[in-house]
Amino acid sequence: MKEIDMTECEHLKSSILLMAVHLEKLAGEIDNDSIKEMLTEVLEARRIFVLGAGRSGLVGRAFAMRLMHLGLSSHVVGETTTPAVSNEDVIIAISGSGQTRSVADLGKVAKDIGAKVVAITSNKESKLGDLADVVVELPGRAKEDIGGYLERHMRGEYTYLTPLGTSFETSASVFLDAVIAELIYITGASEADLKSRHTNIE
Amino acid sequence: MKEIDMTECEHLKSSILLMAVHLEKLAGEIDNDSIKEMLTEVLEARRIFVLGAGRSGLVGRAFAMRLMHLGLSSHVVGETTTPAVSNEDVIIAISGSGQTRSVADLGKVAKDIGAKVVAITSNKESKLGDLADVVVELPGRAKEDIGGYLERHMRGEYTYLTPLGTSFETSASVFLDAVIAELIYITGASEADLKSRHTNIE
Amino acid sequence: MKEIDMTECEHLKSSILLMAVHLEKLAGEIDNDSIKEMLTEVLEARRIFVLGAGRSGLVGRAFAMRLMHLGLSSHVVGETTTPAVSNEDVIIAISGSGQTRSVADLGKVAKDIGAKVVAITSNKESKLGDLADVVVELPGRAKEDIGGYLERHMRGEYTYLTPLGTSFETSASVFLDAVIAELIYITGASEADLKSRHTNIE
Amino acid sequence: MKEIDMTECEHLKSSILLMAVHLEKLAGEIDNDSIKEMLTEVLEARRIFVLGAGRSGLVGRAFAMRLMHLGLSSHVVGETTTPAVSNEDVIIAISGSGQTRSVADLGKVAKDIGAKVVAITSNKESKLGDLADVVVELPGRAKEDIGGYLERHMRGEYTYLTPLGTSFETSASVFLDAVIAELIYITGASEADLKSRHTNIE
Repeated sequence: MKEIDMTECEHLKSSILLMAVHLEKLAGEIDNDSIKEMLTEVLEARRIFVLGAGRSGLVGRAFAMRLMHLGLSSHVVGETTTPAVSNEDVIIAISGSGQTRSVADLGKVAKDIGAKVVAITSNKESKLGDLADVVVELPGRAKEDIGGYLERHMRGEYTYLTPLGTSFETSASVFLDAVIAELIYITGASEADLKSRHTNIE
Repeated sequence: MKEIDMTECEHLKSSILLMAVHLEKLAGEIDNDSIKEMLTEVLEARRIFVLGAGRSGLVGRAFAMRLMHLGLSSHVVGETTTPAVSNEDVIIAISGSGQTRSVADLGKVAKDIGAKVVAITSNKESKLGDLADVVVELPGRAKEDIGGYLERHMRGEYTYLTPLGTSFETSASVFLDAVIAELIYITGASEADLKSRHTNIE
Repeated sequence: MKEIDMTECEHLKSSILLMAVHLEKLAGEIDNDSIKEMLTEVLEARRIFVLGAGRSGLVGRAFAMRLMHLGLSSHVVGETTTPAVSNEDVIIAISGSGQTRSVADLGKVAKDIGAKVVAITSNKESKLGDLADVVVELPGRAKEDIGGYLERHMRGEYTYLTPLGTSFETSASVFLDAVIAELIYITGASEADLKSRHTNIE
Repeated sequence: MKEIDMTECEHLKSSILLMAVHLEKLAGEIDNDSIKEMLTEVLEARRIFVLGAGRSGLVGRAFAMRLMHLGLSSHVVGETTTPAVSNEDVIIAISGSGQTRSVADLGKVAKDIGAKVVAITSNKESKLGDLADVVVELPGRAKEDIGGYLERHMRGEYTYLTPLGTSFETSASVFLDAVIAELIYITGASEADLKSRHTNIE
């Protein structure tokens, strides 16, 4: 590795452009109905819980942070002061394959409690897709992952290193930021409401 | 908020398309020289430390995770078992404004120890930009943030809710994934090397 | 290190017994007045924020978790959905030396916002001790640490490995669990109140 | 709750004294054989992984931090850059009941990989106890918890709020700090070795 030939960083540039094209495709394929259902659940829930493992978990946390900025009551499953889930809450569960075991298992628990489950996945036909009340399908990941996230992690199965995994994560991240933009628009319709929510959190 | 009119999710779609255009612009404006310097530091360092606050911190963690998958020794500043920094290490510090206090302060500490500092920022003329050995400037954020991240956070200054903040974070995220793609290409040149590194971590 | 002679684990047993004696001493030296002030702040605050670095931060998180179980609104500074601090909140800041920079700095920020600051420290004459509204002094740590926590960490200054550091952390941990026991007693005086708070979080 | 009568903080003091007595009992009941086996596994392992949920997870993280300070290669399962587990590694799994699902499940995965599993528990007759290579039994917790940690958490089953849960956590915390003291003694036997390990991490 002493002699590094980076050939004008062509792979780096291609990778960014590929993602730009991917996002354009994403905007075109958006299914309005499922998104409206998702927005309705988010706005009607008492609290919003975000659930995800690995890099999808980080994407979820970035979303939960913005929801809190908006004045909504949001929590990340697994963090220190995250309260118990109730039947008035909604869970946003993020998993490209829809098969990540810990995410599917906890989605099931939330469902049994009576909470609503919204799945963000690229695989509608999956454990998570099957149990969810609302499925928002994003393009990006074909391969199914077997077993739990930490399991695969422990086994060193880094097949999710492939561009396919990354492309779901970026889709999910940009999509969820776009959901925030839409929520700013919707809640902004009633300015007084927004203000009161802001005082609520300070 | 009872009557939600989502007008075909136009804001959501615009937000995604805006990001696609933004990434296309990013690919065009990439400065090869600073990226090559960054790649060289990453490949020559004994260990790679990632530093960032808030959503930039989450972007950094996603990058650190991929570096570990690649077989490189990576750590996130602030996590439980992150070791002491040495003069053989490189710090990847991520801050849109380049002024986030905790990031600039710890970047300075790393610098004093003799470690190399690579800044990922949209503001070259900043505390972080000034002290860094390598600055990779990404388009996206004009406004300067005053004071530390947790400070602003505590004060409830959510001005970083604006699309400008989000656009830096997405740029940084997609850029760092592209760095991974480039690293796969570069290190892949020596297949045996990659394999030995893989066995090393399993 | 091939031939391990553990001599009946004498150091291990001594270490546990030392801590038992240390806790007995702690119970005897407790200053009722400062604890009552702390309990009053906790019960009167709208929300309770916990602040600490390194192992003291972990102790703080364990406390914040129990406060949430009790039905109180608690947050850990630095976690994903932790909201902005207001002048109706209280900050529990934990630092053995009282000099950990990030903790003292953020304690100052909270103070400026108008929040109450309760310091848990073994060093009343310190940055944190000076700015706090209430100081609960716990025996355990004599040495002053210079600079911020992550700073020392980056420099590899593990002097806090000594029993003195550990003894403050255990004191703080057991003391804060005892605060929980007292809070269960106090709030339990009105059983209906406790129950309603429990329903409130489910 | 307007009129707070704290009677001289008697519950708080009792709680601390109770813990002191509990630790004295712990020191007396220590089983040297299992501890020696644990120390041997820790010293012979290539890397040490710490596994736990909730407050037991925080106790585990405090232990992992000290192992890193000692120069040993330690990781917390679930953190960003934690690598894949191998058959040369040891897993320290902490669960009072020994039944916490995520801990037992991941302990099983580690075992299947060929890693050694050390259980820190107060319930030898449990899922975790059954699969572990070494069981260190600590007094403290009688009740069995059903299902996974995040599951119970989601359901709002805070029965682990009882002193019994707390007493296991404190036992485990003080015990693991005592293991560190013993490790300092053992590894200190060869000073050169310790020094080289220290240089290794700086």
